[in-house]
Amino acid sequence: MKIIRTITEMQEQMQRLKSKGKTIGYVPTMGFLHDGHISLMKRARPKNDIVVLSIFVNPLQFGPTEDLDAYPRDFERDHLIAKAEGVDFIFYPSAEEMYPDRASVKVSVVDRTNVLCGKSRPGHFDGVATVLIKLFNIIQPTRAYFGLKDAQQVAVVDGLIKDFNFPIELIPVETVREEDGLAKSSRNVYLSEDERQQAVELNSSLKMARLAVERGERNPDELVGVMKHHIHENTSGLVDYVEIYSYPELQELETLKGKVIIALAVKFSKARLIDNTILEVE
Amino acid sequence: MKIIRTITEMQEQMQRLKSKGKTIGYVPTMGFLHDGHISLMKRARPKNDIVVLSIFVNPLQFGPTEDLDAYPRDFERDHLIAKAEGVDFIFYPSAEEMYPDRASVKVSVVDRTNVLCGKSRPGHFDGVATVLIKLFNIIQPTRAYFGLKDAQQVAVVDGLIKDFNFPIELIPVETVREEDGLAKSSRNVYLSEDERQQAVELNSSLKMARLAVERGERNPDELVGVMKHHIHENTSGLVDYVEIYSYPELQELETLKGKVIIALAVKFSKARLIDNTILEVE
Repeated sequence: MKIIRTITEMQEQMQRLKSKGKTIGYVPTMGFLHDGHISLMKRARPKNDIVVLSIFVNPLQFGPTEDLDAYPRDFERDHLIAKAEGVDFIFYPSAEEMYPDRASVKVSVVDRTNVLCGKSRPGHFDGVATVLIKLFNIIQPTRAYFGLKDAQQVAVVDGLIKDFNFPIELIPVETVREEDGLAKSSRNVYLSEDERQQAVELNSSLKMARLAVERGERNPDELVGVMKHHIHENTSGLVDYVEIYSYPELQELETLKGKVIIALAVKFSKARLIDNTILEVE
Repeated sequence: MKIIRTITEMQEQMQRLKSKGKTIGYVPTMGFLHDGHISLMKRARPKNDIVVLSIFVNPLQFGPTEDLDAYPRDFERDHLIAKAEGVDFIFYPSAEEMYPDRASVKVSVVDRTNVLCGKSRPGHFDGVATVLIKLFNIIQPTRAYFGLKDAQQVAVVDGLIKDFNFPIELIPVETVREEDGLAKSSRNVYLSEDERQQAVELNSSLKMARLAVERGERNPDELVGVMKHHIHENTSGLVDYVEIYSYPELQELETLKGKVIIALAVKFSKARLIDNTILEVE
């Protein structure tokens, strides 16, 4: 496994491999790897000749109230995990390498961002889109792997790839869950013992909604009402949002139809948890 | 020579050639090819395994007062010229193919645009940058060829390639000139016989400025003054601008130093002509 810190060397390596017809699977991360990232690497490994992991804590996607310096980092551990998963290259650039100058071109994501978590993080997805355009041009992947835990990010990346015709196949990967169904998250450790028991009800509320849809429910307000009630009755958490949209367009729906996302965010005493499910409605 | 009208087929062809290690030289145009375009193809042909020409009249780069429908088109003639120059592929998409949906990501060029011709064409370079991101991702060229007649466009493309790390070498190509030094332009036919004689003085004024710099002049205001005076005395044209900036950053200079552009625009009765020269100042 090779660790590369400069854009020039990374591009040269990738050009060399692509000119030999190699396929490249790419897993972009901000490091501090967890089971979600590992599931992306495991998915990429058998499907591609070369697997590239990037580790870059992107300053552009942090808001003014979000602490960039407090973001957890552990390169040594990440390095060992990547090696164990059979990654071929880690791209690990500095912020100066990625943003050396004042930029002359700016990117804004004007759609799919004013809902769900994006509503409370203005500018976040502009930063995500900017760094991904750069990383896509540096790595030149055949396939790029993103976790569906952040389904809004997957929707934004889908728009970015389509709008700009990147020759990249987007591979959305299912959320990794604990045995009881709770979506894995580095934030779960901040739950009290009671809250950890209750948190399983978030996934249960999503399952309830799926079941209701299977039984014929097509009214999003009805489903949102049932889910909010269930979370309120069965947890001490405070519902931040329960929302339903078309996917990946994230447009409001009067009636459930086509590909649909049901997503929620719930605040516990020291952790805000998110989860979602995507379903095809006939 | 192959003519391709869909993005999918173009990307497949290019992927296939790149995976065999072929180099791709790319000449983006809006068609109605003239000597300037031909010089780009001639420059690209011996340096690349494959030469791609694109013909696309990009609606996004036309302002509200600029007439998209009146833009001249002659695909049959363009086709013959490209064939004669040994082009391998013409990419000739429709506007619907390039812009099928409402875009979810927008690009704005925030630097290098508020000077020269860009000042009077707000949004123009946003449209140029947007279509080029798409075309670069569709063609995936090794080298892209742009004429220095529109030196501001070359500067914007330079910023785009650097900011977004496109793995593309930008090749700026010298302006093609008539024997007497007038920069070739499709607009020259709108000059009266007198004006055509006078128009040579635009290039003469640039040469005068170069000579003055060689002799030690470093004050941009001084040079601009001399050039304006020369054009005023020797032509019936109205100076739109004579400006001097660092190149390609297009920043104002108190003293000439490093790579510098001297550029002008002059309005004759029925044609507005532009010209420029780029020099290295010690």
